[in-house]
Amino acid sequence: MKQMTMRILTVELGNRSYPIYIGKSLLTNAEIVQRHLVADQVMIVTNETVGKLYLQQLKPLFKTQQCDVVILPDGEQHKNLDTLNAVFDALLTYKHRRNTTLIALGGGVVCDMTGFAAACYQRGVAFLQIPTSLLAQVDASIGGKTAVNHPLGKNMIGAFHQPRAVIIDTGLLATLPERELYAGLAEVIKTALIQDAEFFTWLEKNMTRLVHRDDEALAMAIERSCAIKAKIVAEDEYEISGKRALLNLGHTFGHAIEQVMGYGSWLHGEAVATGMVLAAKLSQDMGWLAEQDVERVKNILLAAHLPIRLPESIQYDKMLAAMAVDKKLQSSQLKFVLLKALGDAQLVSNIDAAKVRQVLEAN
Amino acid sequence: MKQMTMRILTVELGNRSYPIYIGKSLLTNAEIVQRHLVADQVMIVTNETVGKLYLQQLKPLFKTQQCDVVILPDGEQHKNLDTLNAVFDALLTYKHRRNTTLIALGGGVVCDMTGFAAACYQRGVAFLQIPTSLLAQVDASIGGKTAVNHPLGKNMIGAFHQPRAVIIDTGLLATLPERELYAGLAEVIKTALIQDAEFFTWLEKNMTRLVHRDDEALAMAIERSCAIKAKIVAEDEYEISGKRALLNLGHTFGHAIEQVMGYGSWLHGEAVATGMVLAAKLSQDMGWLAEQDVERVKNILLAAHLPIRLPESIQYDKMLAAMAVDKKLQSSQLKFVLLKALGDAQLVSNIDAAKVRQVLEAN
Repeated sequence: MKQMTMRILTVELGNRSYPIYIGKSLLTNAEIVQRHLVADQVMIVTNETVGKLYLQQLKPLFKTQQCDVVILPDGEQHKNLDTLNAVFDALLTYKHRRNTTLIALGGGVVCDMTGFAAACYQRGVAFLQIPTSLLAQVDASIGGKTAVNHPLGKNMIGAFHQPRAVIIDTGLLATLPERELYAGLAEVIKTALIQDAEFFTWLEKNMTRLVHRDDEALAMAIERSCAIKAKIVAEDEYEISGKRALLNLGHTFGHAIEQVMGYGSWLHGEAVATGMVLAAKLSQDMGWLAEQDVERVKNILLAAHLPIRLPESIQYDKMLAAMAVDKKLQSSQLKFVLLKALGDAQLVSNIDAAKVRQVLEAN
Repeated sequence: MKQMTMRILTVELGNRSYPIYIGKSLLTNAEIVQRHLVADQVMIVTNETVGKLYLQQLKPLFKTQQCDVVILPDGEQHKNLDTLNAVFDALLTYKHRRNTTLIALGGGVVCDMTGFAAACYQRGVAFLQIPTSLLAQVDASIGGKTAVNHPLGKNMIGAFHQPRAVIIDTGLLATLPERELYAGLAEVIKTALIQDAEFFTWLEKNMTRLVHRDDEALAMAIERSCAIKAKIVAEDEYEISGKRALLNLGHTFGHAIEQVMGYGSWLHGEAVATGMVLAAKLSQDMGWLAEQDVERVKNILLAAHLPIRLPESIQYDKMLAAMAVDKKLQSSQLKFVLLKALGDAQLVSNIDAAKVRQVLEAN
């Protein structure tokens, strides 16, 4: 029985609470997918690549609804206001009303853009997430952060807008390109590093299974990552207390890498992987992590086929400049998520830019 | 003493409550303008026309802050995503952080766009409204509705995002073009028609003074309009209960007029004026308003130099089609704000499209 293996987590946000369903074959589970529709209109947002693979399975579920589809170009370089406008064009052309439901079928880019389109269309409509990449399943689809990029900064234009439900079909990972699987593992490793040392040890032991897409290992890793993220989001929905900022471990460096290299050159997870190594080294500089802790971070990332060094061509000045406007910074002082220990992240202010440069240069 | 004549209203929205200051010379009142800044960065958003008139007075107030300015092209036809992007460009170019404060200095278009830019920049930053047109002072600047237009519909892309304060300097109306003054009076009349018969009678008696910009009469009309709108918004911030929808009296017709004629051809207030006449006629059809009530609506609008008939060239089919996707509609059935009596509006569903067509044709 398919349903028997389904797990349900809840993101506890008062009247904005929502379930995360995790299981195989959920994409074609009409009861689950239909449960959270608001009314009789549905707009599926997907991209060229994912649409070809899964649209034919999802669309027939909406026999009794008006179901329209908008297919976006594939890739982070299209995560911008222009592409977003294609979603608005479709919604208005097909006369979608305030009680429509958007459904994101795709990876992080599709999830972020669909959520932001839902946040803005008619000042806010409902949406569901059906993440198809590992990265989106454990990160982008949960927590209500939606956004598009701007040439001068990643995710600089967006909104907090929670989905009605997240439906994670682990079977969809079968078609995920290797490089994207690895990029997703970077966010899984990040979640463990932030606040679950036991999970980190489990990941060290099971990375080979994960890299080879062992079903059971993947389901386990996804559930644990989602549970950790859901708890953090519930504690700090709007990233005010600083708790949620912990999820940005490796991201200040990572965003700078993506921006300086040009969006789409490195995958987000790849940039975060190298960012985590830099954050670990900065943590070592603070006297928090031991040399062997940094080695464990590097080794688990290497086991996940992830980059642990900056590209040789990168200019450190540009990286430092990019970090100065990173939106996690409340002021001009550099602020980073660092590691007190593996499994214990902390937000640290007043980091000296010269020290950051040292870490960049020594990478 | 300038301060002696200042009035303060409050929009009661729990932890999103904010004051509306109404008085003369508030634009140069450093204490009031600075009171609601979050930190040491300010971005003034204005347009070419208003910027020339008032930027030199406002900018010197921010001697101790980083103060940048973005000047948008003037006109409703520029209220779109492209122009919005100019605000994001400026914010990122000058490295504005999450604790920046945007200040809208302008009419309804500037207020709506600045509010929406603030809603989206880094997923939400603070903003103040300094409305310079009568329409913006009594309507656009209050209530947190922010948006841009889409070629297929007005205000279709936006957010609910409340300002930190609204600062209404009645002295700014001295430079307002006559046509815009009249358009603003349309929203004042609308507010009275919705739920204040006494105010409507007062307006009938004082319309000549208002048209001739009598200071005392304008201050009185602005305060009363703002108080009514603030109360309605406090009762139904997100337009869920239907209470806030009452503020759309004349707007379903009005938006259709603007859309079919092309944005910028008729002013918003002008379209709403004619829209209110059509709504009054539909109310008469329902047996609610008497013939002489409809005449009173027409007469007060005429006294305010506002149009009370559709342009001859307009195609009714196009208007009906435009109304079908108007965002106040929860379903395909036509829904209008109608008048049970002058000063008593009500949201009515299930209006027959054929009846609406009759009213259009008989206009």
